[in-house]
Amino acid sequence: MRESRTTLRVRFGETDMAGIVFYPNFFAYFDIATQALFAGGPIDLPAQMKSGGFGFPIAESGAKFLGPLFYDDEITIVTRVAELRTRSLRLEHEVRRGDALCATGFEARVYGRKKTDGSGVEVTPIPPDLASWLEDRRPD
Amino acid sequence: MRESRTTLRVRFGETDMAGIVFYPNFFAYFDIATQALFAGGPIDLPAQMKSGGFGFPIAESGAKFLGPLFYDDEITIVTRVAELRTRSLRLEHEVRRGDALCATGFEARVYGRKKTDGSGVEVTPIPPDLASWLEDRRPD
Amino acid sequence: MRESRTTLRVRFGETDMAGIVFYPNFFAYFDIATQALFAGGPIDLPAQMKSGGFGFPIAESGAKFLGPLFYDDEITIVTRVAELRTRSLRLEHEVRRGDALCATGFEARVYGRKKTDGSGVEVTPIPPDLASWLEDRRPD
Amino acid sequence: MRESRTTLRVRFGETDMAGIVFYPNFFAYFDIATQALFAGGPIDLPAQMKSGGFGFPIAESGAKFLGPLFYDDEITIVTRVAELRTRSLRLEHEVRRGDALCATGFEARVYGRKKTDGSGVEVTPIPPDLASWLEDRRPD
Repeated sequence: MRESRTTLRVRFGETDMAGIVFYPNFFAYFDIATQALFAGGPIDLPAQMKSGGFGFPIAESGAKFLGPLFYDDEITIVTRVAELRTRSLRLEHEVRRGDALCATGFEARVYGRKKTDGSGVEVTPIPPDLASWLEDRRPD
Repeated sequence: MRESRTTLRVRFGETDMAGIVFYPNFFAYFDIATQALFAGGPIDLPAQMKSGGFGFPIAESGAKFLGPLFYDDEITIVTRVAELRTRSLRLEHEVRRGDALCATGFEARVYGRKKTDGSGVEVTPIPPDLASWLEDRRPD
Repeated sequence: MRESRTTLRVRFGETDMAGIVFYPNFFAYFDIATQALFAGGPIDLPAQMKSGGFGFPIAESGAKFLGPLFYDDEITIVTRVAELRTRSLRLEHEVRRGDALCATGFEARVYGRKKTDGSGVEVTPIPPDLASWLEDRRPD
Repeated sequence: MRESRTTLRVRFGETDMAGIVFYPNFFAYFDIATQALFAGGPIDLPAQMKSGGFGFPIAESGAKFLGPLFYDDEITIVTRVAELRTRSLRLEHEVRRGDALCATGFEARVYGRKKTDGSGVEVTPIPPDLASWLEDRRPD
């Protein structure tokens, strides 16, 4: 299954008065890592979303916080497609700083878009080319 | 000219590792205060914006930071319409904690909406009923 | 066990380009609700945290997203102490907009403070008066 | 005077329901760019700030918003030391997406740290090696 690695540096504004990254920002990191994984794929999701098309809204997410992150830390988020279904997928994330595993987490997302009548999300099968790309293990 | 007072409590997540509110959040407070001022007016701007209609996109903003804000501080943002033009307005904000003036700032905003062809913002005159409401001093 | 209700209004800046609340902000809401629950208790946690004392750092968190939240929605977060241990507790949250249940979630938190040598968190028993307060069901 | 260029990609979570970057995030970009400028200098400011030492708290900031930024835009923030005084400096920022100038702004910052008695910020002269580094124009 597809994997990616996303490297970023903790921003000053992502910390809180405890001197560490405010915990909801770990989920923002997961979102960044998921978008980065998709950026390597066959569909330009940002363009598709900008024009009101399909994206991957969140259904469930969770994280275990194993060690704090500090301002200016360089971290790597290792993201794997852990489960791929017709209309949804599960991504698993590891947040690493050097050898230290600082957090693990997951996201369950569906493939959908907002209904034009505002009544919720229209869920639809993941396009075949995107699905087969998500299944493959990246050769690196 | 219209004035409003918006009271809120500083959230833990709005602080940074220096133990005080991260400065871009003062502009988020200005935005909250501006939306709160408009909430008293004759047009339901949130509903109008949700349906793709006109709102008040920002043109310019600035702030002077006179004293830090801390977690759990109760603050009041005093907002005044300082200038009202046909298609734009200037709002001035004061951020107060008790008697202490912690910041001053302003926002220049236009009345507009995104063009459907994505080419930018369509600016239009502020509707007369909204404009006359903005001119009035609130009786309190 | 202790329960609380926290009411807030979705801020414009908490939405994303999908027109709904960006999902990490649900965890920010959980954090706000947890701080609000503690605000009713016998210990002034904000003051204690400002002076470098004990707080409740996060160990684990998760959420199910059942329906989107929109700008200007008034929401209520119902928070319950679901489990109370010597040095940790589990809080469960429900995010409601009127009758609609929009999200459920939980936080596992320990009672601790940063070690002065920077090597991590010192975990210690929850003070007895705070623990017994957390056990009680609020009479309202 | 010292200049730097900081390139980043607009994150999904930095947009709002208008489909563009929420304006306070431009100030977060300024902060990132300022930290990046200092990262090239002779003092490890993040380390110094983590140990409670001096940093550059904000005194004043402002921005003109010339064009919206969208999700996934790659932007460059050009930052210049515009004025250098004994205890303070003024930084000017330009936010560019390709050839388009999307925003300009400034930050006035002092060199200081929080007083240990909590009564405010202790301002002190910028260390000579840092000051002379800030004066130099980067050879590129």
